[in-house]
Amino acid sequence: MAEGIRTVEELLASPLRISGALTCDLIDRTPRGAVLVAALHGRGIDVVRVSEREFLSATDTEQPQGILAVAEQPVHTLESAVPDAAPLRLLVLDGIQDPGNVGTLLRTAFALGVSATVALPATADPWNAKVVRSAVGMQFRHPTVNCTEAELTTFLTARGIVLWGADGAGTAVDRVTAPEKLALAVGNEGAGLKPSVREACADLVALPMVADAESLNVAVAAGIALFALRP
Amino acid sequence: MAEGIRTVEELLASPLRISGALTCDLIDRTPRGAVLVAALHGRGIDVVRVSEREFLSATDTEQPQGILAVAEQPVHTLESAVPDAAPLRLLVLDGIQDPGNVGTLLRTAFALGVSATVALPATADPWNAKVVRSAVGMQFRHPTVNCTEAELTTFLTARGIVLWGADGAGTAVDRVTAPEKLALAVGNEGAGLKPSVREACADLVALPMVADAESLNVAVAAGIALFALRP
Repeated sequence: MAEGIRTVEELLASPLRISGALTCDLIDRTPRGAVLVAALHGRGIDVVRVSEREFLSATDTEQPQGILAVAEQPVHTLESAVPDAAPLRLLVLDGIQDPGNVGTLLRTAFALGVSATVALPATADPWNAKVVRSAVGMQFRHPTVNCTEAELTTFLTARGIVLWGADGAGTAVDRVTAPEKLALAVGNEGAGLKPSVREACADLVALPMVADAESLNVAVAAGIALFALRP
Repeated sequence: MAEGIRTVEELLASPLRISGALTCDLIDRTPRGAVLVAALHGRGIDVVRVSEREFLSATDTEQPQGILAVAEQPVHTLESAVPDAAPLRLLVLDGIQDPGNVGTLLRTAFALGVSATVALPATADPWNAKVVRSAVGMQFRHPTVNCTEAELTTFLTARGIVLWGADGAGTAVDRVTAPEKLALAVGNEGAGLKPSVREACADLVALPMVADAESLNVAVAAGIALFALRP
């Protein structure tokens, strides 16, 4: 489910099949909203108009913009989502629980040229409505794959992709040379990487200048690390 | 108002004067919570225990941990908050409206060694309860100053601090050499820097590798820029 003008615009611009949309008077407040509804109609999408009250019962956003759309959920596999190319960057989410963080991570990965994001078990569902909102629909363009640790490590080995982990105990990220094909794992907000994932990492990297390792938000930390390790 | 175990711990570790605290049975669920309440008592702070129902009526968090504390709000000025030292980094928030973003920005600035954050008009109040929560109490240690554009530019000029702005039209952040004393301004989530602030900037910097300038969250963008421009 995509909600809000910008997210539904992103959905419309993506190859995903839209099943239908729900709207109410709130959408008429901006010309951009009216243009979006016209575009949905133009694509032959079923747009149901309901009262503001009914619309509000279908949403949990704080500032609803009067539009939501439902689309098919793309099913990616590691094989289908990860190009066999170099240089290559992947982001691995190891138990990131907050939907807002997962959304911001997907948005960050997309913006920084990462090819795909892998969600390991215990990570919030990338298709959760809150995640979609925080990612402003970036997952419609940026493939996300759910898989197990074993599936991931087998795949990375087969493709010659090196797994690194972000961890306070690692080498400063500005003192390392990143491999051409790199998957960077970031761990849970409180607990960090799971021991088994940390074990699977060929190297650990840390952010320099950090006054207190706990004090960076995981999406900000991942953004800095992906920037520092860019090809 | 500081809410949640970690934020109240931060408050207790700060020099701020705590007026009182409110707690309920939820706090007994973890040893860390019990330790915190004991520490508050030990400091002679008035801790009022209420029913879970009463506690919930005083909070708007999704997962309340049964502790909140009220403290005096420190009043910083540019003169008191900004050390006359070099190298120096300041962060300037130009109309950042989302409390979650302001909190994450403060947390990021603190973690990356920024001396103080300046909130220009139209920025969410750094002492808003949601901001405090997103910043996990980092503003108890990291000074934040509210001032006008005119006050800021007069102060920066007097101290020889150079103002740069983050803007998609700027020079790539990895191709510039940052001045020793730098204040970095980041703009509103949708509209970017106000024209007058942009005018006041000696230079504009942009993040490289970004597929779509709009697609990075402002706190992630600021984190990357502050990292790239570190002394």
